[in-house]
Amino acid sequence: MNAPLPSHLLPELKPRPVPAEMVDLLRERFGDRCSTALAVRELHGRDESPIDAPPPEVVVFCESTEDVADAIKLADRFAVPVIPYGVGSSLEGHLLAVQGGISLDLGRMNRIISVQAEDLTVTVQAGVTRKQLNDEIRHSGLFFPIDPGADASIGGMSATRASGTNAVRYGTMRENVLGLKVVTAQGEVIETGTRARKSSAGYDLTRLMIGSEGTLGVMTEITLRLYPQPEAILAAICSFPDVDSAVRTTIQVIQMGVPIARCELLDAHSVRAVNRHDKLSLQESPMLLMEFHGSSAGVAEQAEVVQEVAAEFGGQGFVWATTPEERNRLWTARHHAYFAVLQTKPGCRCVTTDTCVPISRLADCINESVVEVEASGLPYFIVGHVGDGNFHLGYLVDPKLPEERETAERLNRQLVERALRMDGTCTGEHGIGLHKMDFLVSEAGEEAVAMMRRLKQALDPKNIMNPGKIFAM
Amino acid sequence: MNAPLPSHLLPELKPRPVPAEMVDLLRERFGDRCSTALAVRELHGRDESPIDAPPPEVVVFCESTEDVADAIKLADRFAVPVIPYGVGSSLEGHLLAVQGGISLDLGRMNRIISVQAEDLTVTVQAGVTRKQLNDEIRHSGLFFPIDPGADASIGGMSATRASGTNAVRYGTMRENVLGLKVVTAQGEVIETGTRARKSSAGYDLTRLMIGSEGTLGVMTEITLRLYPQPEAILAAICSFPDVDSAVRTTIQVIQMGVPIARCELLDAHSVRAVNRHDKLSLQESPMLLMEFHGSSAGVAEQAEVVQEVAAEFGGQGFVWATTPEERNRLWTARHHAYFAVLQTKPGCRCVTTDTCVPISRLADCINESVVEVEASGLPYFIVGHVGDGNFHLGYLVDPKLPEERETAERLNRQLVERALRMDGTCTGEHGIGLHKMDFLVSEAGEEAVAMMRRLKQALDPKNIMNPGKIFAM
Repeated sequence: MNAPLPSHLLPELKPRPVPAEMVDLLRERFGDRCSTALAVRELHGRDESPIDAPPPEVVVFCESTEDVADAIKLADRFAVPVIPYGVGSSLEGHLLAVQGGISLDLGRMNRIISVQAEDLTVTVQAGVTRKQLNDEIRHSGLFFPIDPGADASIGGMSATRASGTNAVRYGTMRENVLGLKVVTAQGEVIETGTRARKSSAGYDLTRLMIGSEGTLGVMTEITLRLYPQPEAILAAICSFPDVDSAVRTTIQVIQMGVPIARCELLDAHSVRAVNRHDKLSLQESPMLLMEFHGSSAGVAEQAEVVQEVAAEFGGQGFVWATTPEERNRLWTARHHAYFAVLQTKPGCRCVTTDTCVPISRLADCINESVVEVEASGLPYFIVGHVGDGNFHLGYLVDPKLPEERETAERLNRQLVERALRMDGTCTGEHGIGLHKMDFLVSEAGEEAVAMMRRLKQALDPKNIMNPGKIFAM
Repeated sequence: MNAPLPSHLLPELKPRPVPAEMVDLLRERFGDRCSTALAVRELHGRDESPIDAPPPEVVVFCESTEDVADAIKLADRFAVPVIPYGVGSSLEGHLLAVQGGISLDLGRMNRIISVQAEDLTVTVQAGVTRKQLNDEIRHSGLFFPIDPGADASIGGMSATRASGTNAVRYGTMRENVLGLKVVTAQGEVIETGTRARKSSAGYDLTRLMIGSEGTLGVMTEITLRLYPQPEAILAAICSFPDVDSAVRTTIQVIQMGVPIARCELLDAHSVRAVNRHDKLSLQESPMLLMEFHGSSAGVAEQAEVVQEVAAEFGGQGFVWATTPEERNRLWTARHHAYFAVLQTKPGCRCVTTDTCVPISRLADCINESVVEVEASGLPYFIVGHVGDGNFHLGYLVDPKLPEERETAERLNRQLVERALRMDGTCTGEHGIGLHKMDFLVSEAGEEAVAMMRRLKQALDPKNIMNPGKIFAM
């Protein structure tokens, strides 16, 4: 049993009960796809964040846009909150029913609607996961690059403006979603965008929805850009004497314009944990895990430049992985880093930071934050999409010791303040959710957040769409 | 003197007079930077569109964000329209004072505020033009790639979500603006975005403003991404037996994932006109004008692939331009194409289309449209950013013959309907303005346009920000 959290870290709860009449109407419409079983509700009432809240009152398993629209029409009629649910991989409490209401599980909406290989586009239902997508389109010679680590749903990735390891080359969900089918807060279905690569046709509703964390509408279909699988892919790891050298190598590579596809930092704590978890024997010092995409000659040329830069900063032990199996082993290890580190402190929970700063400030930002966490005595690790200036410091806290959680939150706050002073953002890819609402105000300013609220009120006057996320309302 | 336009092509005029008291207050605040002289007003009351409207009643020359904010506060108080003005290069009537009001000339806000070369970012005032920007940052080894042809202001390019010749490789203004300073309809100053390359911090106000055509706020400062000047740049022209072959070459190059930087089509009419205008001797058949950016080996490799593909489609007479002077001559000719063609029919005006379709549909879209325009007998030309699926068909009409204008508008409408059937957009880069409001409804649907109106009403309840553009209001 966890000790109670310090009160300022508890989510603000404003339960809005689901009327019995509405539950009856949901049952009538959805049959056994409408559940009020505690186990089902609890499963839909938590995510990967370290925050707890009561579960939603009802879970509805949607199989179509019409299902979503009908559920939302009822929610609109009874002014009851609606929380879209993909696979539950949010790190920021996006799925928590802090105002009660119904969870719309979109996991069964996992159909790839159409692949237009000749246009490098695909349209999917929101519940398709990124791995499923890449498995199903592999035969086309194309791939979808956005890779946040977790096998998240495309809907969830869109809702949080996710990115991950490939963003340095291919951009984020912001750049790779062409269009959406969205159910509005009134249960209407609209389409945003087209399959054209660019458009100047009116307000960018697509980008307004991307990153809105379910607070403006529920995305049910998503049209994405795809890319030809590169002729050659080369992955490499390189060890450095310290984090600073690895980061400075990255900074120089980016400033030189090398079109590196992935450039990931793992600190020594992370390398040690993945060695144990994945039975690897990587050198237990800070490491860059890189990948190059292009023609055979092109990737060789890129890799050579990077190797030269790394050598200047003391990087050594370049190991190349050219076969898909070797590459997969490395990237699987990278993706396991979070869970691998969690296992080093049994029973712990992790407070994860997500700052992103202009590339020239990255080394200072990491170095100063490491000094602070070392002084605190909390176990921690660093992994980072350092090519973008984005990194995650994870603080491992014992849930039975609220003072550890308080320390972690203090360190997180100090790191965010530092990133903002450096012209950066409090969240590169995880979103605001419940956990960063104060940071959003510090970052964007009261007036800009007031503008966001006005937009929210204009589209969702009853405040039923994932209420209480991004800003208190 | 022009013959009157057919009534359905006239802009809807809803004059909202500027009260004498407001003019006095503007004069008090801005002195001789507030003008009511007819010549000044007329200069600010037209653009490159074929549409006419009465000029604004007052022009205010702004020199700072504070100037813009103070002018808008007065406009808010008196509920008078405000139209931001850059260099007047709009093609869609964005600058026309269809509801009267004041024009805010931002041309004197032409300062580069800061270059952060080590972060590949720059912050500029909205009146800086793209050529000025690139001239002033040349010494840094960086460049800003977005190139809509005209030497437009960065503010205007942001307001229309512009793109142009480099978008196939570098994206559009949507992808290349990191953050904004915006004056709201209430005269408040907000900042959106940071200098971080990516962020998941709340609603994407930056992307909401980009492409909003001055209807939601006035952008006064813009933070942009920059790119290292490529180690090698290679331009090439290649002639084709017909437009279809040139387009099919483009389609295949894009589908193969060749990272071509620019891929422009000029039809035979355009080539003939630029030959005369720029005293060139290009082969007067359809032509691709391409550019490759990368390492020396990389551009050679790309060019080789493209040459092979072009040969398959009958492309011949590859001419390479490696020196900056040769390249500039070709790109200057390309940028002169519009004016060069206008000179082939003295006194004419041009109705320009701007459709953008998924790349696989591009050849069909162009071919069918050419059949239609040939049948009409109107002189025309085609230039296109074909790597994006975007092209411009220009119809040359005699302003004294309204039937020519009607024919051009019919052809434009048919082309847009075709593009929409092909999952494309009515405007790839010029914006909706006055001219494409009906097309926006066809493309986005009544419900999505209703959502845009709700956003507009939420941020600008008095409808003072460039009213009557994008949708009638």
